[in-house]
Amino acid sequence: MVDFDHLLADTGRAVNELLDRMLPMHDDPEARLVEAMRYSTLNGGKRIRPFLVTSSARLFSVDQTCAHRVAAALEMIHCYSLVHDDLPAMDDDELRRGQPTCHVRFDDATAILAGDALLTRAFEVLGHPATHPDPRVRCDLVVEVAKAAGAEGMVGGQMLDLVAEHHALTMPEITRLQRMKTGMLIAVACEAGGILGKAPEPVRHALRAYAHDLGLAFQIVDDLLDVEGSPDEVGKQTGKDEAAGKATFVSLLGIDRARNQADMLADQAVQHLEVFEDKAEPLRDLARFVVNRRA
Amino acid sequence: MVDFDHLLADTGRAVNELLDRMLPMHDDPEARLVEAMRYSTLNGGKRIRPFLVTSSARLFSVDQTCAHRVAAALEMIHCYSLVHDDLPAMDDDELRRGQPTCHVRFDDATAILAGDALLTRAFEVLGHPATHPDPRVRCDLVVEVAKAAGAEGMVGGQMLDLVAEHHALTMPEITRLQRMKTGMLIAVACEAGGILGKAPEPVRHALRAYAHDLGLAFQIVDDLLDVEGSPDEVGKQTGKDEAAGKATFVSLLGIDRARNQADMLADQAVQHLEVFEDKAEPLRDLARFVVNRRA
Repeated sequence: MVDFDHLLADTGRAVNELLDRMLPMHDDPEARLVEAMRYSTLNGGKRIRPFLVTSSARLFSVDQTCAHRVAAALEMIHCYSLVHDDLPAMDDDELRRGQPTCHVRFDDATAILAGDALLTRAFEVLGHPATHPDPRVRCDLVVEVAKAAGAEGMVGGQMLDLVAEHHALTMPEITRLQRMKTGMLIAVACEAGGILGKAPEPVRHALRAYAHDLGLAFQIVDDLLDVEGSPDEVGKQTGKDEAAGKATFVSLLGIDRARNQADMLADQAVQHLEVFEDKAEPLRDLARFVVNRRA
Repeated sequence: MVDFDHLLADTGRAVNELLDRMLPMHDDPEARLVEAMRYSTLNGGKRIRPFLVTSSARLFSVDQTCAHRVAAALEMIHCYSLVHDDLPAMDDDELRRGQPTCHVRFDDATAILAGDALLTRAFEVLGHPATHPDPRVRCDLVVEVAKAAGAEGMVGGQMLDLVAEHHALTMPEITRLQRMKTGMLIAVACEAGGILGKAPEPVRHALRAYAHDLGLAFQIVDDLLDVEGSPDEVGKQTGKDEAAGKATFVSLLGIDRARNQADMLADQAVQHLEVFEDKAEPLRDLARFVVNRRA
């Protein structure tokens, strides 16, 4: 896994540099907004979604400059969703990636606006000619990312999560919730390489299928870390789901069966990659990384 | 102005019908989100931005179906910004268009998510093939709208507004604030007709110049209504700026000079339209409507 660790670190560095350039500080009186946008994106996330974009783009020999721009846009959307989810009116979290959350470091209003501005900027990046020479490809990215991030995807999933606090969920319900809340953005990150490379639909489908299994495995491990991890290790408050009486994969399956389920999903994810042969090795490594991570 | 009143009402009806179809109710457990999105958009706004899009599109004989889609997208962005601005963490408003604001009718979390989902949906609409057959035009719309709505535009303006609460603004400062907060979205609504019609840059510039003067006149009249209007007439709380000690065009200029300034800007706006001759009559009427409105 040495190669994988390097590759993940390299992607992280490249996307951090790009985000740094895309969100330049300035002296205008509203600079607090850019500060909050930078604080919420340049804070050492794992950069799983960027890694999915760059790894899937490599399958089709896509220019990595294009891939990095899409990766940065998706990371902006991921980070905006964390900023809004952490707000007192939502999950009310004070710790994120080992640091005070955006509204704690700044204030609620600034956090709301920083999230709004990151989401908006992401679409500006996707639509910009530098992201791909073919405007049809850029429009495809805008539409697919919007679907994954909007009312039928990530935002709908967060609504479902809030509604679900008031009643017990079944396995199919929690699976649908997680698919919307985190799975669809992970899937579009992985499909993005195929969109950039103008891959035919069956190939794009294989990428989505891999990513859906991966996303679910990722979420189950998140639930396990909430039970088994410490805040120091994980970088955010733990034990929150249980304290809130919230249904999770772990509360429904128990620790052992949840662990087995995550491993099984990672294996299943990898099987969708056969068509890509050796070129998909980084994506296979990622599946193993996701289920073995400690944070 | 009989023709103008009809035209404004017709545009409002067409855009309402389209928004109604774009935001269909469903039975899924997260339906509260769509309910809040519908509540915040289908509540009888004046539809000034849609009118700008359709009127400017008519100058270039653009298919009105395309224009209506762009109009709906811009109205979603305008409405999302109102939902977020009304939140307790921001302006803390309880009344909007004569109705309880979104977070009062639902709750803060739902209002945050409904805003996020409307912003996301707007870009999905702009990027979709039904909005224009040429993907280059759609990308242009995505990028220009994102610039106008983001950190250098509307969201930046709202940040500036929050920062400004703590110190007195000068005329150039308040002009910059309003240009960002409301002017740029109004300008891109007007420019959108030129983008859809593939108008050359000097023509697009004339549309932006008209819209910038119009937007400033609109804002001055807003400030006047906050002082002179009653909540019943205006449909939202009045006297808030003065109570908060907030600098406005009226606090800086006084009522009479502010009124003169609005009239002068409306005249100046109309002068940018000469190149379009008779075809621009609806946009000229709009300038008169904006300064004479009572709500």
